Amino acid sequence: MTFVATVGEILVEILADTPGTGFRHAQPLSGPYPSGAPAIFIDQVGKLGVPCGIVGAVGNDDFGWLNIDRLRSDGVDVSAITVIDGATTGSAFVRYRRSGERDFVYNIKDSASGQLMIDMAGATLLDKTTHFHLTGSSATSESIREAVRVAIETVKAHGGTLSFDPNLRKELLDDSEPRAFFDWVLERTDIFLPSGEEVFLFASARKPETAANELIARGIPLVVIKNGDRGAAAYQEKGTVAMPAYQVEEIDPTGAGDCFCAAFVACHLNGKDLETSLRYANAAGGRQVTARGPMEGTSSLAELDEWISATATTTSA
Amino acid sequence: MTFVATVGEILVEILADTPGTGFRHAQPLSGPYPSGAPAIFIDQVGKLGVPCGIVGAVGNDDFGWLNIDRLRSDGVDVSAITVIDGATTGSAFVRYRRSGERDFVYNIKDSASGQLMIDMAGATLLDKTTHFHLTGSSATSESIREAVRVAIETVKAHGGTLSFDPNLRKELLDDSEPRAFFDWVLERTDIFLPSGEEVFLFASARKPETAANELIARGIPLVVIKNGDRGAAAYQEKGTVAMPAYQVEEIDPTGAGDCFCAAFVACHLNGKDLETSLRYANAAGGRQVTARGPMEGTSSLAELDEWISATATTTSA
Repeated sequence: MTFVATVGEILVEILADTPGTGFRHAQPLSGPYPSGAPAIFIDQVGKLGVPCGIVGAVGNDDFGWLNIDRLRSDGVDVSAITVIDGATTGSAFVRYRRSGERDFVYNIKDSASGQLMIDMAGATLLDKTTHFHLTGSSATSESIREAVRVAIETVKAHGGTLSFDPNLRKELLDDSEPRAFFDWVLERTDIFLPSGEEVFLFASARKPETAANELIARGIPLVVIKNGDRGAAAYQEKGTVAMPAYQVEEIDPTGAGDCFCAAFVACHLNGKDLETSLRYANAAGGRQVTARGPMEGTSSLAELDEWISATATTTSA
Repeated sequence: MTFVATVGEILVEILADTPGTGFRHAQPLSGPYPSGAPAIFIDQVGKLGVPCGIVGAVGNDDFGWLNIDRLRSDGVDVSAITVIDGATTGSAFVRYRRSGERDFVYNIKDSASGQLMIDMAGATLLDKTTHFHLTGSSATSESIREAVRVAIETVKAHGGTLSFDPNLRKELLDDSEPRAFFDWVLERTDIFLPSGEEVFLFASARKPETAANELIARGIPLVVIKNGDRGAAAYQEKGTVAMPAYQVEEIDPTGAGDCFCAAFVACHLNGKDLETSLRYANAAGGRQVTARGPMEGTSSLAELDEWISATATTTSA
């Protein structure tokens, strides 16, 4: 029986209501919204009805319970979320500039998420996990990398599979230790899900297709490149499948990549073909950006079906 | 030459726009507002034109610079605020219930403020300090109590004076170590500024006047009890002066006590009599609650004079 798990940060997001630069003056805000890339991913998996859970940590505060309540009600096993007394649930303040760039004020490293570890409940969850997903942005501290390493080894030891969304800043790979860690992850990856330029982080080729083929030659069975409003393409040894994005009015792009990965992985694990998996993945990412808040646009299968039939695709794929 | 200093937390406050219970769902918010009880106190001192500074710590983020910019522009020496790379500036989410009670989500202990220490800049500031003010709520960790102890000893060693606003939860005093610390502070206190019931935290008497006299007998020269909308009273060995509060429409009471203490201390140090000092203190507290945001209602002397002449006092004093 399929069970999808991930490990990583569970946060709240506070979103500025007006576009502009940063947080140096009081302004209208909205939140707290449940957030954190791995949390968004697993929420979208849960909404698609695939059994799943997350190993994470929150504080014993409203921000933590907001996330636990949301994930639970969307079908996610929350038994391995540790509630740490005296710690504060992590947060991210986000403001969009008019250019589309984002300014952030983060509290993650010193929040409950920074204390994440695999306890008994986490080990139990990983023991039944058939597919593990890593969002690279989670693995920014040595202690969390160690937890991820244990998680991947546990799942791989009983024949489970691994998907990996780099979702990380290039500068992180300038350090040899994270670089070695992500190379270790990539060696074990069954589905690699980079966004656009990220495919070049781990390949020497300078074109997406050749980079993907280079990674396939290294032993990754399936490379899926997310190209946002230009759609997505899945590369395998036997060939490539590309699918166009949907035409959407973007309200808030945060979380689109996580929803894409979740829908792709959920469909693929359920035996859907690449074309169908990419279609649902593009739809999950597209529908997500039409909602304000990083986890507010996750979708059920019925919602995706309805949305797909009502929404046109772009012409470029 | 007078120089007032304090030590403690510098925070941002995020204020819920609607009354209700807590932060378990997304809602309209406003902020970040500069905040932190000692920061509010010292901002009000600065606005009254009294030379002053604060020893504190913020993260190298918009929340930290927002506070530094505000304090500096209001006349506060910010040279002893440490900007800690990699730490997040502390925060408090505040929501008022319809009953007037408040719900909070704090990030203080694990924020930059939790790493506060007296470095070279702090020692330089304290060397020129003639009056030190402690807000009891700052002294909630052993490391911060140690910093406060050093600060008080430094200022007292060169003949400076000390004011102490307990501003603390009764439960904190159930622990013997904080209790011993606050007793140590009280032994050195020149102006004790409890709010209402707080006077009983350190006295056995059950009436304000007898409790104040008990503290005076213990060697505290001046006890000022803040009674909010019922005004304030100053107790000395030679007698009592009471002054009524002002009639205000309360928008946001946060910070009123800090502004009261600041105005009282500033006037008293400037040689004003108790009646005048209490009048300005009541006015500073009263004017503060008419503004939304914990530091948004601090006042210059001219603003207080204008406000006093335009605002009626209550009849109870």
